[in-house]
Amino acid sequence: MLDRHHTAQVLTVGTSQYLIDCGEGTQQRLLEYKIRHQRIHTIFISHLHGDHFFGLFGLLGTMHLHGRTEPLQLFGPPGLDDILTTQFRYSGTKLNFELVFTVVDTTQHQQIFEDKQLTVHTLPMQHRIPCCGYLFREKPKRRHLIKEQLPTGLTPDHLTALTQGEDVLDSATGVLLVRNADVTTDPTPSRSYAFCSDTLYLPGLAPLLHGVDLLYHEATFLDEMRERAALTHHSTAHQAALLAKQAHAKQLLIGHFSSRYRDLAPLLAEAQAVFPNAELGVEGKTVSL
Amino acid sequence: MLDRHHTAQVLTVGTSQYLIDCGEGTQQRLLEYKIRHQRIHTIFISHLHGDHFFGLFGLLGTMHLHGRTEPLQLFGPPGLDDILTTQFRYSGTKLNFELVFTVVDTTQHQQIFEDKQLTVHTLPMQHRIPCCGYLFREKPKRRHLIKEQLPTGLTPDHLTALTQGEDVLDSATGVLLVRNADVTTDPTPSRSYAFCSDTLYLPGLAPLLHGVDLLYHEATFLDEMRERAALTHHSTAHQAALLAKQAHAKQLLIGHFSSRYRDLAPLLAEAQAVFPNAELGVEGKTVSL
Repeated sequence: MLDRHHTAQVLTVGTSQYLIDCGEGTQQRLLEYKIRHQRIHTIFISHLHGDHFFGLFGLLGTMHLHGRTEPLQLFGPPGLDDILTTQFRYSGTKLNFELVFTVVDTTQHQQIFEDKQLTVHTLPMQHRIPCCGYLFREKPKRRHLIKEQLPTGLTPDHLTALTQGEDVLDSATGVLLVRNADVTTDPTPSRSYAFCSDTLYLPGLAPLLHGVDLLYHEATFLDEMRERAALTHHSTAHQAALLAKQAHAKQLLIGHFSSRYRDLAPLLAEAQAVFPNAELGVEGKTVSL
Repeated sequence: MLDRHHTAQVLTVGTSQYLIDCGEGTQQRLLEYKIRHQRIHTIFISHLHGDHFFGLFGLLGTMHLHGRTEPLQLFGPPGLDDILTTQFRYSGTKLNFELVFTVVDTTQHQQIFEDKQLTVHTLPMQHRIPCCGYLFREKPKRRHLIKEQLPTGLTPDHLTALTQGEDVLDSATGVLLVRNADVTTDPTPSRSYAFCSDTLYLPGLAPLLHGVDLLYHEATFLDEMRERAALTHHSTAHQAALLAKQAHAKQLLIGHFSSRYRDLAPLLAEAQAVFPNAELGVEGKTVSL
C-alpha cells in the first residue's frame, strides 16, 4: 500500500542512533524525517527478507558518497556479508569507511554489543529463515546527588563514588564520613526496548523480555487468521499482546501489518483487549521512553 | 534530495510496458503513478550502480508475492544474475514465475530483443563499470487502406497484402488488379526512443541514434564541471545537447542531475542553448510521442 513502508526503526539514546532493520526506501525516509545518516554508527538486521534489508545497499552507498570515514558496525544473520560483497564487487564499490560486520547466531539469546550507554542481546525468533530480534538495555545510571545535603570538603573522587552508590570513608581510618543514602537519590531508571520481528508467537520469550519498557512485536494478522500466521511464521495482534502481558512489558507497539488490512483499528482493538497500553507502530511514529 | 528519486523509466507501447532501470523505491513509485507491475514483462538494466537497480529485488519480490506466474524477461550486464541468485538463496526465495535473464554485452551495438511491436538494440556507454544504453524502435507499421478507393471483391488476404505495401495481382494470370499506391496511404510513422545513462559524452553514438524521436541522455553536471564529469564518467547538459544535435534527434530529455543542483533551470538553459527542444526529465514526468 502506498502509505506503508518497509521495516526500519531508529533508536535514539542521547546523541547516539541505532538503526534496526533497513527496508527498501530507508534512506529516503531518513531524509523525510530529518534523521542524519551520519549519526548512525550501528545497524542491526533481523533477517534477510527484502522488506527488512533491501534499503541497506543504498544507505551504505549514500554514506560512502557523502564521504563517511567513521567505521560502521553491522550485525545480521549469516549471508549478509556474502550478499554485500557480491554487490560491491559488481558495482566496483570500495567503501571509504570501515564496515565491521558481525554475524549473529539467531538461535541464541546472548549479548552481542555494548557501548557506554547500552547493551544489546539477541532474541531468537522463529521465522521461515534465520531471524533474530534485539533487546536494547540502557546500562545502570548514576545516583543523583542531593546538593544541599553534601558536606563541604568532598573531592571529585568522593562525588563520583557517591554517584556510583558507595559511601565516603576516611581514607586513613576507614571511618564512615558520608552515608550514601543520606546524600543521594535513586538514579533515573534505565530504559529497555525489545524489537521482535518477524516471528511466530513464542511464549518462551516472556522471561527474556521481563519488565521491558517498550516491546515492539509484529502483528501481521488478526487472530481469526492465526492458522495462516502459523503457516507463514508470523504472529497475530492477539498473540503480540499476550506476550506483552506475559512479559509484564510496560508498553506494546505492534507493526508489520499485512497489506490486506486497510483499516488498522481492528488490529489495535484486538491487542488492547488483552494489553491496554498498546499502540500502532505506523509510518513516522516516534515513541519516547 | 528528498524530491529526487533514483533512475527508473517505464516505456509504454500500446498495452505493453517495458521498465528501464530500477533504482531503489521503484515499486513505491509505480504505486504512486498507478502503473501496474503486472503489466511489465521486460526489464532492461543499464549497469550495476545502486541508483539504477537496487529497486529490482523488491520489485521482483512484490511480483512474486502478488502471485505472478507470467515469465519476466530481464536484460542486464554480467553479474546481475549472480547478485540476484545470492539474494534469493539467503532469503529462501523461489519465484513463482520464470525469470529469464539475458546477459548483455555492454561493448556492442546489437539487437537483443524483439517482440511484435519493437526491437531493442544495446548502445555501448562509457562509465566506470560496464554500462549500456538501450535503443527502442517500433517496427514498421501497416499502410492505411483508403476504404472509398477499394474495389469490391477483395479477399481478407488481399487486404492484408495491401497494408503490407503489396499490389493485388490476379492469382491465375498475374495481371495487376489493384495498385497499392492507389488505395493506401503511408503508415503511421514508427517511433523510437534512446536511453543513454550513465556515460561520458560519446559523439560516436550520433550515427546509431540518427533521427531518434526522443533521446534521454544523462546530464549530471553543468559544463563548467566538464572535468569532473570526465573524471567520474558522466556528461554535462551541454554535451547531452550536442549529441542530440549531432544525432538529429527530434527531442531531448536530460536527467540524472547531481544533487548539488537544487535549481535545475541552469541545466535546462545550457542544453536548450545548443538544442532548443530539450526538457528536464524530472520525477513523474510523462512524454508522449
